[in-house]
Amino acid sequence: MAKGKKLVYSFGGGKADGKAGMKNLLGGKGANLAEMANLGIPVPAGFTITTEMCTIYYKMDRKYPKELGAQIDLAMKKVEKVMGAVFGDSENPLLVSVRSGARVSMPGMMDTVLNLGLNDVTVQGLIKQSKNERFAWDSYRRFVQMYGDVVLGMKPQTKTEEDPFEVIIKAKKQERGIKVDTDLTVADLKELVLKFKAKIKERTGKNFPEDPKEQMWGAVNAVFGSWMGERAIKYRKINNIPGDWGTAVNVQAMVYGNMGDDSATGVAFTRNPATGERIFYGEYLINAQGEDVVAGTRTPEPVNHKTKTEASQKTLEEVMPKAYKTLEGIYKKLEKHYRDMQDIEFTIQKGKLWMLQTRNGKRTAAAAFKIAVDMVKEKMITKKEAVMRISPSQLDQLLHPTFDPKAKKVVLAKGLPASPGAASGQVVFHADDAEEQAKDGKKVILVRIETSPEDIGGMNVAQGILTAKGGMTSHAAVVARGMGKCCVAGCGDLEIDYEKQQMAVRGKVVKAGDWISLDGSSGEVMEGQVQTMQPKLTGDFGTLMGWADTFRKINVRTNGDTPNDAKVAREFGAEGIGLCRTEHMFFEGDRIKAVREMILADDLEGRKKALAKLLPMQKGDFVGIFEAMDGLPVTIRLLDPPLHEFVPHEEEAQQALANDLGTSLEKIKAKVASLHEFNPMLGHRGCRLGISYPEITEMQATAIIQAACELSKKGIKVKPEIMIPLIGSLNEFKNQRDIIKRVADEIIKKSGAKVQYMIGTMIEIPRAALLADEIAKEAEFFSFGTNDLTQMTFGYSRDDAGTFLPMYVEKGILPDDPFQVLDQQGVGKLVQMGIKLGRGTNKKLKVGICGEHGGEASSVEFCVKAGMNYVSCSPYRVPIARLAAAQAELK
Amino acid sequence: MAKGKKLVYSFGGGKADGKAGMKNLLGGKGANLAEMANLGIPVPAGFTITTEMCTIYYKMDRKYPKELGAQIDLAMKKVEKVMGAVFGDSENPLLVSVRSGARVSMPGMMDTVLNLGLNDVTVQGLIKQSKNERFAWDSYRRFVQMYGDVVLGMKPQTKTEEDPFEVIIKAKKQERGIKVDTDLTVADLKELVLKFKAKIKERTGKNFPEDPKEQMWGAVNAVFGSWMGERAIKYRKINNIPGDWGTAVNVQAMVYGNMGDDSATGVAFTRNPATGERIFYGEYLINAQGEDVVAGTRTPEPVNHKTKTEASQKTLEEVMPKAYKTLEGIYKKLEKHYRDMQDIEFTIQKGKLWMLQTRNGKRTAAAAFKIAVDMVKEKMITKKEAVMRISPSQLDQLLHPTFDPKAKKVVLAKGLPASPGAASGQVVFHADDAEEQAKDGKKVILVRIETSPEDIGGMNVAQGILTAKGGMTSHAAVVARGMGKCCVAGCGDLEIDYEKQQMAVRGKVVKAGDWISLDGSSGEVMEGQVQTMQPKLTGDFGTLMGWADTFRKINVRTNGDTPNDAKVAREFGAEGIGLCRTEHMFFEGDRIKAVREMILADDLEGRKKALAKLLPMQKGDFVGIFEAMDGLPVTIRLLDPPLHEFVPHEEEAQQALANDLGTSLEKIKAKVASLHEFNPMLGHRGCRLGISYPEITEMQATAIIQAACELSKKGIKVKPEIMIPLIGSLNEFKNQRDIIKRVADEIIKKSGAKVQYMIGTMIEIPRAALLADEIAKEAEFFSFGTNDLTQMTFGYSRDDAGTFLPMYVEKGILPDDPFQVLDQQGVGKLVQMGIKLGRGTNKKLKVGICGEHGGEASSVEFCVKAGMNYVSCSPYRVPIARLAAAQAELK
Repeated sequence: MAKGKKLVYSFGGGKADGKAGMKNLLGGKGANLAEMANLGIPVPAGFTITTEMCTIYYKMDRKYPKELGAQIDLAMKKVEKVMGAVFGDSENPLLVSVRSGARVSMPGMMDTVLNLGLNDVTVQGLIKQSKNERFAWDSYRRFVQMYGDVVLGMKPQTKTEEDPFEVIIKAKKQERGIKVDTDLTVADLKELVLKFKAKIKERTGKNFPEDPKEQMWGAVNAVFGSWMGERAIKYRKINNIPGDWGTAVNVQAMVYGNMGDDSATGVAFTRNPATGERIFYGEYLINAQGEDVVAGTRTPEPVNHKTKTEASQKTLEEVMPKAYKTLEGIYKKLEKHYRDMQDIEFTIQKGKLWMLQTRNGKRTAAAAFKIAVDMVKEKMITKKEAVMRISPSQLDQLLHPTFDPKAKKVVLAKGLPASPGAASGQVVFHADDAEEQAKDGKKVILVRIETSPEDIGGMNVAQGILTAKGGMTSHAAVVARGMGKCCVAGCGDLEIDYEKQQMAVRGKVVKAGDWISLDGSSGEVMEGQVQTMQPKLTGDFGTLMGWADTFRKINVRTNGDTPNDAKVAREFGAEGIGLCRTEHMFFEGDRIKAVREMILADDLEGRKKALAKLLPMQKGDFVGIFEAMDGLPVTIRLLDPPLHEFVPHEEEAQQALANDLGTSLEKIKAKVASLHEFNPMLGHRGCRLGISYPEITEMQATAIIQAACELSKKGIKVKPEIMIPLIGSLNEFKNQRDIIKRVADEIIKKSGAKVQYMIGTMIEIPRAALLADEIAKEAEFFSFGTNDLTQMTFGYSRDDAGTFLPMYVEKGILPDDPFQVLDQQGVGKLVQMGIKLGRGTNKKLKVGICGEHGGEASSVEFCVKAGMNYVSCSPYRVPIARLAAAQAELK
Repeated sequence: MAKGKKLVYSFGGGKADGKAGMKNLLGGKGANLAEMANLGIPVPAGFTITTEMCTIYYKMDRKYPKELGAQIDLAMKKVEKVMGAVFGDSENPLLVSVRSGARVSMPGMMDTVLNLGLNDVTVQGLIKQSKNERFAWDSYRRFVQMYGDVVLGMKPQTKTEEDPFEVIIKAKKQERGIKVDTDLTVADLKELVLKFKAKIKERTGKNFPEDPKEQMWGAVNAVFGSWMGERAIKYRKINNIPGDWGTAVNVQAMVYGNMGDDSATGVAFTRNPATGERIFYGEYLINAQGEDVVAGTRTPEPVNHKTKTEASQKTLEEVMPKAYKTLEGIYKKLEKHYRDMQDIEFTIQKGKLWMLQTRNGKRTAAAAFKIAVDMVKEKMITKKEAVMRISPSQLDQLLHPTFDPKAKKVVLAKGLPASPGAASGQVVFHADDAEEQAKDGKKVILVRIETSPEDIGGMNVAQGILTAKGGMTSHAAVVARGMGKCCVAGCGDLEIDYEKQQMAVRGKVVKAGDWISLDGSSGEVMEGQVQTMQPKLTGDFGTLMGWADTFRKINVRTNGDTPNDAKVAREFGAEGIGLCRTEHMFFEGDRIKAVREMILADDLEGRKKALAKLLPMQKGDFVGIFEAMDGLPVTIRLLDPPLHEFVPHEEEAQQALANDLGTSLEKIKAKVASLHEFNPMLGHRGCRLGISYPEITEMQATAIIQAACELSKKGIKVKPEIMIPLIGSLNEFKNQRDIIKRVADEIIKKSGAKVQYMIGTMIEIPRAALLADEIAKEAEFFSFGTNDLTQMTFGYSRDDAGTFLPMYVEKGILPDDPFQVLDQQGVGKLVQMGIKLGRGTNKKLKVGICGEHGGEASSVEFCVKAGMNYVSCSPYRVPIARLAAAQAELK
């Protein structure tokens, strides 16, 4: 299956076999390294083993085709030529890094080995070349440690066990009475290498491989193997990345940021990834390897003056002005070339700058808006491109509440504002604990000294992440931003004690389970649960959403039951109400009393009496909502839930109700018992109630139309769309429609107001979609209630599916939770059928969706394609729907 | 809308405007009267106002088009000419009857007026013509009484009030000290006419109409009006007769069976309607009007010697041999002409025989089989016609149990075996009570002195009907036979007291609510609930079903969970098992313990241990079923219900279980609570269980295949079809299929037996039908589970829909209960879609149905048309399905 295939792509020396467009084959890192090489940017030479090879590797049961060896040998020769060194040579050895690189960035998810090619012989060559014995032995020590960890599986074997190599280092330091690694002598390092190798032999039963080629194959194995590792699988699941994409392997000549004080390593963003500000923004460490920056074990310095936060910081701009100047030129070139904000990695070896990576940088939602709008102003991209640059799911974070600045708060400590947002939760100190407690519905904040890729699952379920170590580009910060999750990083004041399950903050002890709040925009860590407030959406957000609206054809409405909902949603751009649930009004204040009186009445007269009490209250609700939605359509759904939801189920409350109504407890109990249903979801609800008790429909129609007439006379434009729920047959619709029409026309005639209203139906029962042609003959609009439609099409009770749905998604039986993401294959088929049949008999039929899918991007795209007139979603998801709808048109 | 239309059809004098084929226009009675007239059979002349006129009447808001009057006048002239009398004439008055007549017979449902045309003047003419003053005045008295009741609404106004005219008669008899009507003198009758008219004036405020034309229009109004009367509407609903069919009105010259002892009236069947025996079978009364026979107020005599049951009876054959001879000739002519058993009405006026009606006679299922088979033997009809003659719903009664002749029984009394069957129930004395109690799920026997059309609702819900008065052709008997319901009529020993709500039977008192049993084949009335036994189906049944099978293409299987079910169904002609529910086996004996142990296990190991205990028991079940079904396919559905159905919900039972398993009550309670679901119908059940707990699927597959291998080695042909329930997606199917295949192939390989098995799925979730093309790629068969499919397609919980479904059917929102009759429009659309999609990707796909619809005739017809391979139903419905399937092919 690999015969004649090119499996290895070279790059370096100002040219490359690949290019940026070949991400699917070379992975993001490999493709961009090739692109940079082609652009003449200095990258250490190397080669990329393709993602296709990864797929073949798994198809061949973790073996390689013969061709691969020859192609690698050839590529290695090219690298040797460009770099002027020879792999495994005792005099001038070529050392390489071996890294993974999938189509999309999966930060820290897969494995990396540095300094590969070192052994007892080549280390001597490195000493000669670097003229630095300590550096060479430290590199060798690091290599054995890293290779042992990544390739040979030398990991802690229990939660509390320490890293086996770190134990050896600690012992050595104790023996020598020193504190920091840098105090280790050449002799110490030599001894550590021996001890590491002995430990490896002890645990694995095998000698450490001295042959550089064997080392390389081991590392390649490890990278391909890591694609199917637990961490990577979990990450892919969270981020919806298919398992058959595979990863590429990048083998690249080493350059050293740790060859002395004229060497450095760093990562940077071409613009601020948190705010989007057009400022070159990065961190670096002198005399360090790249992993030191990302891992957060040393706190790095800012690259330039503009991003300095403390006077004592030493910037790259000051320390190595020449290298900084070069870097500036390169970042500008890259941003212009890629037409997007770049996330770059660089190393300076003895004053010479080398680029190790460039990719589109992850950013917060706010930054995404700012960058997109700025780049349009800079004429770098078009408005369409700007709209396509914002991910609807990312936008979600912008719409979440922030802390109320007026709220009382006790600040415990301050860290780096690594990923914005406001989060409150109970402290946990381990990712597994976070996952377990989140399953029970708890809100948790994951607190770690530093996070590692193993923590990905816990980070995903946490409300926010707090670390004691690491900078703005640390693992925690990068991953949190990618997830749109609040993160405070590098909060040095925390003294975290995993064993005691607590942390001390300037003497104050916070235990696991205590509540704290994080402000990802200020870096503040606060005691308890701090009050939040609504976000303001203006500036770049408004500008870009305005552009989006010009591309969008479908309307976006909101689901809202109160005047306040209506107001908020209108501010978010809602163009009407797509679902106003009247029963929510039934629970408020005194109303529930009248509702219960109605339910418990023995006869029509009794029910009418109680309904008469409800009428003015219900009318008042509609007055408020119609006022708030002046000029926009408001879809009102008639009573939907089964009546037993309104009666008390505890004896005490039943007794109180009996006293209230002047009846006996027994009677109440009997009524409640008679209302009990085995499957209330499929019971006496929706239009079935209105058909059983036409007087309820009459009251609701009266309230709606009276409110409309009253406001209409005051000059307010009212567009009521009365929606009958749970229709399964034409006759049900006709029955209810006739009642509504009779009541409405009489009121309108009497009042003399000019009110136009529509009568339509929810399509939420499979049968309604199947018979949509019949129903559309009489109905003026359809609103797909995809929540219930999903329940009935799948036969899943939303209240109960928690026992198996997560397992279904985990096992890949379903791609997503169909209550979150519309099942286009099954439920969608019914929706399309319903629209086609409905429009077939009623060309003017207005069609919308009012399930929760109306605010989920892929579902909105489906609705656009299906030809709906509008989507309706919760107020906070209105902007997401607007954006998703625009993107659907642009795709 | 009536312009130029012929609204009135004449008949009589050996010719007619209409004929038998015009039933839709003339009604059954009118068409057959015309047909008889054309055949030269003596029928009193008359005319029929069409059913079309009835529809126009309602469209014109109960008014008539002008044309009608002229057409009636013309027709009346013809009648006068043929009968030699003049309507309203003082010397030789023509008197007429006015009767309803719909397309199909609706016995007693609509109104009739006799002797119309009489008034104070014409009564003198009648005296002259009849030469019988008493007869003339009695006719006049009867006419006023009947007209008052039917046209002028002179009915009892409360449940306990007596008929207002009967009150007057009673008073007169008391005053005169006489007991029977026949003792009333001419003077008495004259006085009664006056008093009746006075009572009418008192109640209605209007004079009794003396003008014969006015009388006739009143009667026509009443007949058309009765079409929309409560009784008629209820009857149509029960019998699925559309309301827009309308009724015709037959106006016909009166002939008198009560003109003295040379006059008589009677009804007869050309063969015995209870047994089908080829014996002319009828009853008559000397000197009586037809209504006297039907109403059951006098007990009539048999028409001939062959049908005499007591020596004292005087037959028509003996009393009027000449008329009987003529009648014999006519009945034979009619049967031959209509090629079916006829139900005829005749009157002998002064020795001359007149035919008043002929129609196909209602009959019991047993009679239907015998008559159909006999007529084929007599070469009167073909085998195909014979098969079409049996109504599948009627067949139902044949399949119901009869009383075990060995059962202990205390016979209270004996009446006429009016309609066969065995029924037990609690006594009720009023039709309304029957309806009310039946709603609560009670089994009732309706006991009445005699039944009337008002009782139709109560008769329909009763298990059986018992009357004290009336013969084999009384209202109770005719209606009960039509309904296929057990009836004992004319049980003279009963002393029924409606007020005390009890009856005395030879001194023994039976109260409302007491249990009795009726044997409709012997006429016995027994104390308490008598034990029943299975029916034997041989003879004519076997012959005709054999013919049916030759016309049938679809297979008929049974739903059966035990070897006994399998045996019974095989005897009924089942060609395999279409649904064997394995969970029913889980409840028996010790098994439930092991099942509970499995459910309560903490881990896989615990579950496997418990499942190992279940395995041999479950295997044993399959051995029994496979043996019984040797050579036929057996479809086995894997575990379907949610686990909470298997655990105890009462504390006492929970404690016992805790003791059994050596665990704590708290643990049991917690587990039970964790299994609770809000909508269990849509919960963790079906394949969702098998996916959560693959070990359950493994155990069941093992039990099935081990049993199959074991029997196969003994030479028994085993064809297991393993069915996965509640599939909604291809991945679910694959997951379970892979487990079953792995387990099965291993067992078969090990055992060396040659067992072929299939793996398929239920299609019972809408999504499965929508994605049937996907699923059929992997599944070998589909079985439509239309019970659940109906629940989910409609969004109806079968357990809860009782609160609104009856109301829906009553209001005409749904034509039928969709759980009884497959909803072809909605659910059927999904079924058709599923079959089409499935066969599109898998041509060999075997398709069946295993919902309860598989035994309902119209649904079976649907399945045949949809191209299914088989239907499966409960054992007792197998013959119905066989017949319905044959008829579907013949239609």
